[in-house]
Amino acid sequence: MQIAFSNQVIESSLMSETNAAQEKKPLAWRERLYEIIFEADTPAGKTFDVLLLIAILLSILVIMLESVKSYDLHFGKEFTIAEWFFTILFTIEYAARILCARRPLRYVFSFYGVVDLLSILPTYLIFLDSDEIQRLGVIRALRLLRAFRIFKLGHMLSGAAELRAAIWATRSKITVFLATVVIAVVIEGAALNLIEGSDNPGFSSIPQSMYWAIVTMTTVGYGDVTPVTPLGKCFAAVIMILGYSLIIVPTGIVTAELSHIYSSEKLGGSHLTTQVCPECMREGHDPDATFCKFCGSRL
Amino acid sequence: MQIAFSNQVIESSLMSETNAAQEKKPLAWRERLYEIIFEADTPAGKTFDVLLLIAILLSILVIMLESVKSYDLHFGKEFTIAEWFFTILFTIEYAARILCARRPLRYVFSFYGVVDLLSILPTYLIFLDSDEIQRLGVIRALRLLRAFRIFKLGHMLSGAAELRAAIWATRSKITVFLATVVIAVVIEGAALNLIEGSDNPGFSSIPQSMYWAIVTMTTVGYGDVTPVTPLGKCFAAVIMILGYSLIIVPTGIVTAELSHIYSSEKLGGSHLTTQVCPECMREGHDPDATFCKFCGSRL
Amino acid sequence: MQIAFSNQVIESSLMSETNAAQEKKPLAWRERLYEIIFEADTPAGKTFDVLLLIAILLSILVIMLESVKSYDLHFGKEFTIAEWFFTILFTIEYAARILCARRPLRYVFSFYGVVDLLSILPTYLIFLDSDEIQRLGVIRALRLLRAFRIFKLGHMLSGAAELRAAIWATRSKITVFLATVVIAVVIEGAALNLIEGSDNPGFSSIPQSMYWAIVTMTTVGYGDVTPVTPLGKCFAAVIMILGYSLIIVPTGIVTAELSHIYSSEKLGGSHLTTQVCPECMREGHDPDATFCKFCGSRL
Amino acid sequence: MQIAFSNQVIESSLMSETNAAQEKKPLAWRERLYEIIFEADTPAGKTFDVLLLIAILLSILVIMLESVKSYDLHFGKEFTIAEWFFTILFTIEYAARILCARRPLRYVFSFYGVVDLLSILPTYLIFLDSDEIQRLGVIRALRLLRAFRIFKLGHMLSGAAELRAAIWATRSKITVFLATVVIAVVIEGAALNLIEGSDNPGFSSIPQSMYWAIVTMTTVGYGDVTPVTPLGKCFAAVIMILGYSLIIVPTGIVTAELSHIYSSEKLGGSHLTTQVCPECMREGHDPDATFCKFCGSRL
Repeated sequence: MQIAFSNQVIESSLMSETNAAQEKKPLAWRERLYEIIFEADTPAGKTFDVLLLIAILLSILVIMLESVKSYDLHFGKEFTIAEWFFTILFTIEYAARILCARRPLRYVFSFYGVVDLLSILPTYLIFLDSDEIQRLGVIRALRLLRAFRIFKLGHMLSGAAELRAAIWATRSKITVFLATVVIAVVIEGAALNLIEGSDNPGFSSIPQSMYWAIVTMTTVGYGDVTPVTPLGKCFAAVIMILGYSLIIVPTGIVTAELSHIYSSEKLGGSHLTTQVCPECMREGHDPDATFCKFCGSRL
Repeated sequence: MQIAFSNQVIESSLMSETNAAQEKKPLAWRERLYEIIFEADTPAGKTFDVLLLIAILLSILVIMLESVKSYDLHFGKEFTIAEWFFTILFTIEYAARILCARRPLRYVFSFYGVVDLLSILPTYLIFLDSDEIQRLGVIRALRLLRAFRIFKLGHMLSGAAELRAAIWATRSKITVFLATVVIAVVIEGAALNLIEGSDNPGFSSIPQSMYWAIVTMTTVGYGDVTPVTPLGKCFAAVIMILGYSLIIVPTGIVTAELSHIYSSEKLGGSHLTTQVCPECMREGHDPDATFCKFCGSRL
Repeated sequence: MQIAFSNQVIESSLMSETNAAQEKKPLAWRERLYEIIFEADTPAGKTFDVLLLIAILLSILVIMLESVKSYDLHFGKEFTIAEWFFTILFTIEYAARILCARRPLRYVFSFYGVVDLLSILPTYLIFLDSDEIQRLGVIRALRLLRAFRIFKLGHMLSGAAELRAAIWATRSKITVFLATVVIAVVIEGAALNLIEGSDNPGFSSIPQSMYWAIVTMTTVGYGDVTPVTPLGKCFAAVIMILGYSLIIVPTGIVTAELSHIYSSEKLGGSHLTTQVCPECMREGHDPDATFCKFCGSRL
Repeated sequence: MQIAFSNQVIESSLMSETNAAQEKKPLAWRERLYEIIFEADTPAGKTFDVLLLIAILLSILVIMLESVKSYDLHFGKEFTIAEWFFTILFTIEYAARILCARRPLRYVFSFYGVVDLLSILPTYLIFLDSDEIQRLGVIRALRLLRAFRIFKLGHMLSGAAELRAAIWATRSKITVFLATVVIAVVIEGAALNLIEGSDNPGFSSIPQSMYWAIVTMTTVGYGDVTPVTPLGKCFAAVIMILGYSLIIVPTGIVTAELSHIYSSEKLGGSHLTTQVCPECMREGHDPDATFCKFCGSRL
């Protein structure tokens, strides 16, 4: 709370200064730490992000190998040590992020703040002796979500932004598409339950049949549940061709939308920076932006 | 019948009045009911549609859970009560729709009219003691089709209209595509029946082999029927690559058509209203439309 | 031979006459038959095509049902009668086609000529007493290929022509794509044979492994052959993601090509006629064409 | 080494001569050999490439058939002879390539140089008596990679170049897409391991669950591992719909990019030659290029 307060003070004082003065003033250690941890424009920031990414991937690897019984028997001790090493590392990083963020609370409750917390918390739960809780250690896999930060590196940020723009622009059509899929799944599930339900345990209830309908419609086709009656097979054939054809429509929509974005050159020419707004923790600012376009605070 | 008649009278009298007079005249309760039930432009209409959607989804949930044996044993009574609650609710709504529609008969025989009837009828069949008929209760799942009315909400209507326009514009090519798929399925089915039929029960008849061919061509691939002879596997490989590649063509067609629609801005700029024509029960009217573009009656 | 000869004579004499004279001259019965059988511009031609299509579909239905043992036991006699009815019908039609075609030999050796023959020949083979040959009766399913003639009806012809144009324009890229798929399949097959071959009977030889690789790469995924070693599963995961992603590229190519065709309006505005060239039996002529664009003979 | 040296001398002397003199000078046998082996512009070069392609395909066929036990028992001797024939042929070709390349070392370490070596080496390993090493004979399947050289023939080169350009232009978006798929796979794998791990051997470890997640997300769906608990099936349904929908986005991106390339006509009008740079062994030069655009040496 006190940190948040002092942060506010610094910010207000910064806002009152002129631009010229600000650029000349040497950055305080907190500002410098902020640049390293939250941004990827400076060499130090880039190095930090790359090292963090490696640490994340290694820790994910440890979690994976730990879950394999034969490895766990042989290297159990090493895995525990590695896990504690990464947890402490990420805890320090988490503390540093809170320390240097201008509005720590906003960081804590931002998407990445929650993910950062979830990736260190489960290890500490080991002190609790319940088996049930220890199994939740698998939640640590969520720390891979932090790897999304790599999109700050290279030219990936503008690519991700374009993708988001295209999906956002087509959201109403994609909703229509998904609603159609869901309605088709429910009705097909009910129909197959009616047709096959009495003979085939895989269609004994509507939710079961819906599971089958989704497996079929998305063309996954496990084969753990398959229709056996001729009528059921006919219905299945219809839903297969439907699922096979249905994917065409949203593809066309997203593509047409993306072509539209390309030709209107709204996004084609812009190169977004990797700066994170120190206030609202959001990305995607233009290189010439001085203020955050989401919350208006100085970048 | 009498309702329909009085309705006609009101309508005729309305048509004979001048526009100015009509706009000033306070709406009768039937007009107001019509606005609430059939349209989503007014706050009351929007609220009604949202509540109806929730009721539909809840009733579908009850139908689903009812079909699971273990739940039915424990909560059978509660499910029956809930089912009757929703059925009576939808019956009242159905009666209200007939009451306020200007041409009730046209509503009754419209697509949604039939769906509305089918979603309440099966519950009343429970008075009939036949087991066979009671199993048809699953038809109630069709009431999910009524959920398509949600497309009236938000911006989904124009999205759905654009989709329909694109599919309609490409119907001849999609027919060619589907005909090619069907012909390929029949010929592959016959070929595999010839090759594998004597050894493999899954290919014992042409319809059986066609079922396999559809499962393969749509890349679903259950694996309940698979070729075992080398020649059969070769044919299967060909049909797989064919099915994998075939989807490309209609995708290209629909996309090109959609891009065309986008660039010609025929649909891009228009925002359709949620009004339903009181005469022919069809949607998709432009915001500045005063008369239905399908039947010419006043909106 | 004699027919072909007399045909030639008629044709030459026709060619020497002036256009004006030709248009006034009443059509001979052979010309009229030609119009009915080979074209779909006149009401009689359209009716003939629709009736033929129904006959083809019905005969295919008979072939299908005949292959189901339980139906064959009960209705074997009826099926044989129906089969002979359709065979004689198609034989008459085949004879009529030869009779009225201006160059019968060219028709006989054209694609549809061969298909027409193959759809009647197998039934006559029943007189041969060998079981082996009778099993070839399934070849009659090829008569469904004749159904491709329905594309003459409605607006499907220009749709089919556009499809062909798009596929033809992108043939070099699609070849590259298919070659890449085949090379990936062979190398993956060899790799999995090396990794899994000793333990897993499904990968005992390279062709076997290639079958698996095709099943996997096209995302069909029967599951009749699956990798069991960790390394094999890793390789399988790579080929899956490859197959899943690979489809993107040709889709993009065909779509871009189709958009190009659309915007250059080369095909968009034209409506092709259903006329078949009486000389070379090819379709796809423009409505204002007086001579065949493939062989130069009068339409 | 000496060859490389003398080669350098010739090259330097060639470089110092004037263009006019060079064009008149009759080509030395090495130059002629170079044209035949490395290029496909001359009739001799085209013939060589076609013959080489046939030899590669035949040798691949031999490798495939050899791996089938029943064939190997009967035709083992013939296969060995054929294999040695192709190996010696490819060895001679490899020597000739080294001999006529202007910079042999660069050829040896180029992609095709390594592939060429790998396709002959395994056969010679037969002299080593270890069974382990002989199983590596399957590496010879890599010689199919040499078949990629066929893209020099026909119009395929510009098609392949356009494909590469489109993929290269969209690499950042495709990376984002693949990273999203991988992150989704890891998190889904961890989740299913948590949910199903205790009951279902197919989900006993995170890598196992990830294998299942990839099989599901790419819509392959073997069915060797399937969820059995209701919660697991719900999660599976989510990942299926995700995988089914996800493919839309990169398709749209690549297509939009390709349309862009088409309309800007950067690649549409150019026809690339089949010349290989004698220095750096790279292809894709424009027809009017006199110097290699990658290393600047004379073509």
